[in-house]
Amino acid sequence: MDLFSTIKRPTLLLDEQKARLNIDNMAARAQNAGVILRPHFKTHQSAAIGEWFREVGITAITVSSVDMARYFASYGWDNILIAFPVNWREIDEINQLAGEINLGLLLESRDTLRYLDWHLKQPCNAWIKVDVGYQRTGIPWNQPESVLNLAREIQRSRFLRLRGLLTHAGHTYHARGSQEVCQLSQENLNRMITLRDQLTQAGLDRLEISVGDTPSCSLCSQSGATEIRPGNFVFYDAQQWNIGSCHADQIAVAVACPVVATHPERNEVVIYGGAVHLSKDAFDYGAYTAFGLVSLPEDGGWSMPLDGAYVRGLSQEHGIIHLPDEYFNQVRVGDIVCVLPSHSCLAVTLLRDYLTLEGRAIATMHSKP
Amino acid sequence: MDLFSTIKRPTLLLDEQKARLNIDNMAARAQNAGVILRPHFKTHQSAAIGEWFREVGITAITVSSVDMARYFASYGWDNILIAFPVNWREIDEINQLAGEINLGLLLESRDTLRYLDWHLKQPCNAWIKVDVGYQRTGIPWNQPESVLNLAREIQRSRFLRLRGLLTHAGHTYHARGSQEVCQLSQENLNRMITLRDQLTQAGLDRLEISVGDTPSCSLCSQSGATEIRPGNFVFYDAQQWNIGSCHADQIAVAVACPVVATHPERNEVVIYGGAVHLSKDAFDYGAYTAFGLVSLPEDGGWSMPLDGAYVRGLSQEHGIIHLPDEYFNQVRVGDIVCVLPSHSCLAVTLLRDYLTLEGRAIATMHSKP
Repeated sequence: MDLFSTIKRPTLLLDEQKARLNIDNMAARAQNAGVILRPHFKTHQSAAIGEWFREVGITAITVSSVDMARYFASYGWDNILIAFPVNWREIDEINQLAGEINLGLLLESRDTLRYLDWHLKQPCNAWIKVDVGYQRTGIPWNQPESVLNLAREIQRSRFLRLRGLLTHAGHTYHARGSQEVCQLSQENLNRMITLRDQLTQAGLDRLEISVGDTPSCSLCSQSGATEIRPGNFVFYDAQQWNIGSCHADQIAVAVACPVVATHPERNEVVIYGGAVHLSKDAFDYGAYTAFGLVSLPEDGGWSMPLDGAYVRGLSQEHGIIHLPDEYFNQVRVGDIVCVLPSHSCLAVTLLRDYLTLEGRAIATMHSKP
Repeated sequence: MDLFSTIKRPTLLLDEQKARLNIDNMAARAQNAGVILRPHFKTHQSAAIGEWFREVGITAITVSSVDMARYFASYGWDNILIAFPVNWREIDEINQLAGEINLGLLLESRDTLRYLDWHLKQPCNAWIKVDVGYQRTGIPWNQPESVLNLAREIQRSRFLRLRGLLTHAGHTYHARGSQEVCQLSQENLNRMITLRDQLTQAGLDRLEISVGDTPSCSLCSQSGATEIRPGNFVFYDAQQWNIGSCHADQIAVAVACPVVATHPERNEVVIYGGAVHLSKDAFDYGAYTAFGLVSLPEDGGWSMPLDGAYVRGLSQEHGIIHLPDEYFNQVRVGDIVCVLPSHSCLAVTLLRDYLTLEGRAIATMHSKP
């Protein structure tokens, strides 16, 4: 049966071929740059999709929560970095995991270090979180003495093994196009290398450098780093397309949404597909704020995004799509439109299950059993 | 054991007493105005909380999807209005439900009417969706001839019983304060009454009027309507507080989030609690865009929101909170802060389960079994 004829509700479609190609491409980029790919699994959150990474030789992964680490550990991943500041309240779960797998933790303060000194009962890898300009968390890159002090304390710690310096340069999401992204990316990388070199001079040998936002890793060589940790690239999304990290035909997920009303007087289509399916994460679509790009079913998948079409608004279950004249007449109530989500990680979390273009269901850690 | 000492991860706290008071207040307001309260259950999405409404005499409810209708029907609700344009692709589920309960559907087009004429096999109540100015969906209130034509077709339909006119005046969310909200609310209500009277003159007797956004229903009399359908009022949230629909101490849910880092140099605290817990729905907190208000644990519940404190940013799992000096020093890594979410309906969908201040878990339709 035709895939789209089976769809009743907002459904997360996955183009397996595109996702596997994205994985292959990133693995090749890492190899060319001489860096290890430690992909972030917070985007797909799925054991089955994790296997696609294993098939290209990935053995070490990144996650964003202790829960996610437990989930992937239960599927045989034994080298996991939790790229999130240590949550003291999950120390029991951390100890249990660290007893089972090679676990990496992020530190950015002496408070947390002392807490771990007191409560950690198993060996863990420690990464110092460095802020290269994003200003979310981490020790600023230009405070080498703070980093050095923390590094020395980590070295004196019983169970922590200092691995190196880690950053997430989330501010590349504000850049547009290869040149701007790579200028920023190189600046970030240089800051990490400078800091590492300062620590080397102070006697801290062999510190690794872990970097990895999707725009930088998709567009620019990360040569000089030890490992990269991009996540979003497995699917990409409208935000990444807007940054210039990918072409529209590399976007590997789309949310199939039933059309429930049309409003010719304002070129708008109402879909079953709202904030509880797509998330309210927006991007700038030219002069407009948009929650997704819009395509139509085509050849068992979805078309290229329709020029000038975008999701202009979302309420809890409703989406409002603006369609230029040439497309408006192609869409009728009862049809399916495919929304390329603004932020695929959040759409995955909300929709919980994938449906491949071949009609196969794939679960995530959020699926109902 | 102290409630907050048990919390490890972002947790949706529910103050049952406040929620029950909110329900009591709205039931009293409806009674005073002489209108029926048909509460929207899309906010709490919980069979257990539904019972609190039953205790004050509620027998008819509103939902936003066929799924939600099925869920509540399975808990004994037998008068349910799906306040969402009919999704043709769920006609089998609609027929099944309509065979079991008193089901209400929303129509706004002849296309959908004809689809239902062809496929509906059970009696349903029909409401014509009217747009009083929100411009999301519905027939504009000032096109009485379009409404009349649709109404007459509904009357000729085999299984549909025309009940009346329904609107959702979502544009009241842009108003601020009682005076502005009620001016807009009265204008909306007058438009519905005018339209109803025009239809009465054309021979369509006894049409009901269904209205009901939380700001209007919280602040203004809806006298003249037949029924009101507010939903958010059961918990309220930062957006409603900002509109002026509620006082801060009426907000009945808060997301307890562990503090994982502090940044004194910029008065910021990093919490475990991000877009996958709170949603990226924002509100204007003075000159700032905020994703929640901030309070601290207090007397087994949470304090009033801290003046000048707000959630300034969210990534997937991180939240960044700005705290003025006087509060910053009260918060340490490992502590819990309570975020009053920007939009409680979305936070409930994301977090799926409640924990009452007495430590009791309450499930929603999204809970894992």
